[in-house]
Amino acid sequence: MPDLVIQPVTNEEVQNVVKYANDHNIALTPRGNSTGLMGANLTIDGGISLDMVKMNKILEYDPNSLTMTVQAGIRLKDMQEFLADKPFSYMPAPAMHWAAIGGNVDTNAGGLKAVKYGVTREHIRQLKVVLTDGKFYRFGAKGVKSSSGYLLKDIIIGSEGTLGVVTEVTIRLYPTPKKSINAIIPFPNLDDAINSVPAILASGVVPTTVEFVGREVIGLWEKYYNETFPIKEGNGFIILGFDAFTYTEVKAELNQALEAVKKFNAMKAVVLDADSPEAKKIWGCREALILAIQKSTPKMDEVDICVPINHIPDVLHRILELEKEVGMRIPSFGHAGDGNLHIYLCSDDLSDDEYKQKSAKVITELYKTAKKLDGNMSGEHGIGYARKDWFEGYYGKDYTNLLRKIKKVAFLRLFFYCRF
Amino acid sequence: MPDLVIQPVTNEEVQNVVKYANDHNIALTPRGNSTGLMGANLTIDGGISLDMVKMNKILEYDPNSLTMTVQAGIRLKDMQEFLADKPFSYMPAPAMHWAAIGGNVDTNAGGLKAVKYGVTREHIRQLKVVLTDGKFYRFGAKGVKSSSGYLLKDIIIGSEGTLGVVTEVTIRLYPTPKKSINAIIPFPNLDDAINSVPAILASGVVPTTVEFVGREVIGLWEKYYNETFPIKEGNGFIILGFDAFTYTEVKAELNQALEAVKKFNAMKAVVLDADSPEAKKIWGCREALILAIQKSTPKMDEVDICVPINHIPDVLHRILELEKEVGMRIPSFGHAGDGNLHIYLCSDDLSDDEYKQKSAKVITELYKTAKKLDGNMSGEHGIGYARKDWFEGYYGKDYTNLLRKIKKVAFLRLFFYCRF
Repeated sequence: MPDLVIQPVTNEEVQNVVKYANDHNIALTPRGNSTGLMGANLTIDGGISLDMVKMNKILEYDPNSLTMTVQAGIRLKDMQEFLADKPFSYMPAPAMHWAAIGGNVDTNAGGLKAVKYGVTREHIRQLKVVLTDGKFYRFGAKGVKSSSGYLLKDIIIGSEGTLGVVTEVTIRLYPTPKKSINAIIPFPNLDDAINSVPAILASGVVPTTVEFVGREVIGLWEKYYNETFPIKEGNGFIILGFDAFTYTEVKAELNQALEAVKKFNAMKAVVLDADSPEAKKIWGCREALILAIQKSTPKMDEVDICVPINHIPDVLHRILELEKEVGMRIPSFGHAGDGNLHIYLCSDDLSDDEYKQKSAKVITELYKTAKKLDGNMSGEHGIGYARKDWFEGYYGKDYTNLLRKIKKVAFLRLFFYCRF
Repeated sequence: MPDLVIQPVTNEEVQNVVKYANDHNIALTPRGNSTGLMGANLTIDGGISLDMVKMNKILEYDPNSLTMTVQAGIRLKDMQEFLADKPFSYMPAPAMHWAAIGGNVDTNAGGLKAVKYGVTREHIRQLKVVLTDGKFYRFGAKGVKSSSGYLLKDIIIGSEGTLGVVTEVTIRLYPTPKKSINAIIPFPNLDDAINSVPAILASGVVPTTVEFVGREVIGLWEKYYNETFPIKEGNGFIILGFDAFTYTEVKAELNQALEAVKKFNAMKAVVLDADSPEAKKIWGCREALILAIQKSTPKMDEVDICVPINHIPDVLHRILELEKEVGMRIPSFGHAGDGNLHIYLCSDDLSDDEYKQKSAKVITELYKTAKKLDGNMSGEHGIGYARKDWFEGYYGKDYTNLLRKIKKVAFLRLFFYCRF
């Protein structure tokens, strides 16, 4: 528990708190809307929890420069509602619409549309940040290009609140796509499904979304939601999305992709027409997958490694081995187009001690696998408190020391929550 | 002049040179194919020029992970030739095809296609870098997403060789667009032309390219190339490009853009069909603009500020004032879609002393303008040797000191060419 919770409403209040904490050697941990999964916003060392949720205003909607500037505590869903009747969107699509944009910046949140649009990083033009010297810095600019000194915006993005407090965020406004099409393709097994993805991408199309899911996880949804999945054939599925300016374009892209997957034993694809009950059920299933897994087990932990897309099957095979080796149920699904898996460690009927011990083993083994495959520890959830003990083992002493040194540059004497 | 030029061919040689230079306090300046415009690769303090052009191999073409790994000294044009018969492209399009990819990384090169595809930064997945401790670091990964500690890849990109020596670059392979369409739209004046750009982008289309050029600069091309520009009407021009999977899509996007520009007094657009002599002439003109300006004056310097796109006209108005105030010809053209201008300071019949003095005045005033408009000093050329004296004035002492501190983290005792 924190010693003190402060909910600032102005930049100056943030500045004063940071200065005070710095002058008095008090730990300070910034916090968004508390949707983070790895505990980066927990006040592990006590001190001040700097809760940003009251700084939730839209400061400037500036369509002529294709930017919008907001306070860091605004929720994605409030930004989306504000933009709903305007010709622009904020394109990153993390599943948690109620996350604060500042938290999205701090974890470099990803989501479903990274294949085409990239992650949070690519959609942030400028940040206003208080560093530990109590001064405000503007990193980035509204203009698109910069070759003007080290772009510190990109080191703040993904730093999980350990380098400074983000108070204002200037996002890129992207013209809202006019047409979109989605489809689900069944395959005899998950390997065939995932192996088809590089072929889709080599066929000349750029999907918005390429997700994979297996029959087993869908079974959990059927069981815990008392539903029936409308597609009977196939054990592995790819969900594909395209968007563009014309329907002809998205239809042609989808057809091309369906052609490309044929040689991977693809079965008959189902186009997910937004109005059909079948499509609604399939989307409902996709969105409820994580909750279905959660309902299936008393406790759950997650690993979200990101590997080169062609190595996702290697990870899935390792998961199958680990289920047997360790004796734990480990369902997964994820983003086939960008290599980011969501892997769930289920406690089921294990004792707390057993679960703790077996989880540590599975996490360690999955990180070994990701490292061997040239991947990263986390695609979108971060390291936080929960994974800091694995960081140095994964990236090595030299690399970790380099990050520690960079942290010290901005850090001065203040103890932000320090995960490295 | 450097005291010594070294052309390494292996990673180990680079490592040994960096270590030696570091141990003996010798200045060391990495160098690509020497196309940089701001002198970041000049050995101002003597020492070693580390010329990377012999490290020019393609190490791995890996379409299944959508990446290609090359040595830092390979030229863009060689990468493009290698990819010509493959279904993928490297999308950034800097005008200098003979630049080395390592130099492009170090300046975060931009080019003509940034509106849709972003700049170099967005197309680099991973870097192998020797820091001043003589050790190799891998920054980034082949996977698309990362939330695994500070993403140091993005601080190396744009650092102009001042933080370390990049030896290997893993680029993102992007499916080559199947269809493209380009058009040139004349307007009564340049203000109307540029003011139409936010309206184009708000109409729901995402062009690849949005360039602006005025009749005056085209006149220089006509004069020095002894040519006639095929479009007689209009004084300001927008060149628009679209690419997509189908011709229907690019045609519909172009039509939508032409509809959007009507209220800015747009005249009849000319579609640039790649095979027509007219189109060839107009593209030839666009590509020769910089050379035409160069032919028009004994000496030339350039400012490439980047401002929010809706403020480009403010810069152009200031240029007109400065031409009168300072007494210098200052032609310009640039990237209307991303706010990056190319502004040329022509010596004409000024004496060397006069030119030096007047140039300094114009550069200072243009930076003042860019700063007031929330812009950056350089969109794509960098700061280098030529502009280092303006940096602290532009970004302030606190910000510059912050960069100095970060430089020291990697820097240890080695004198890379130090511009801050």
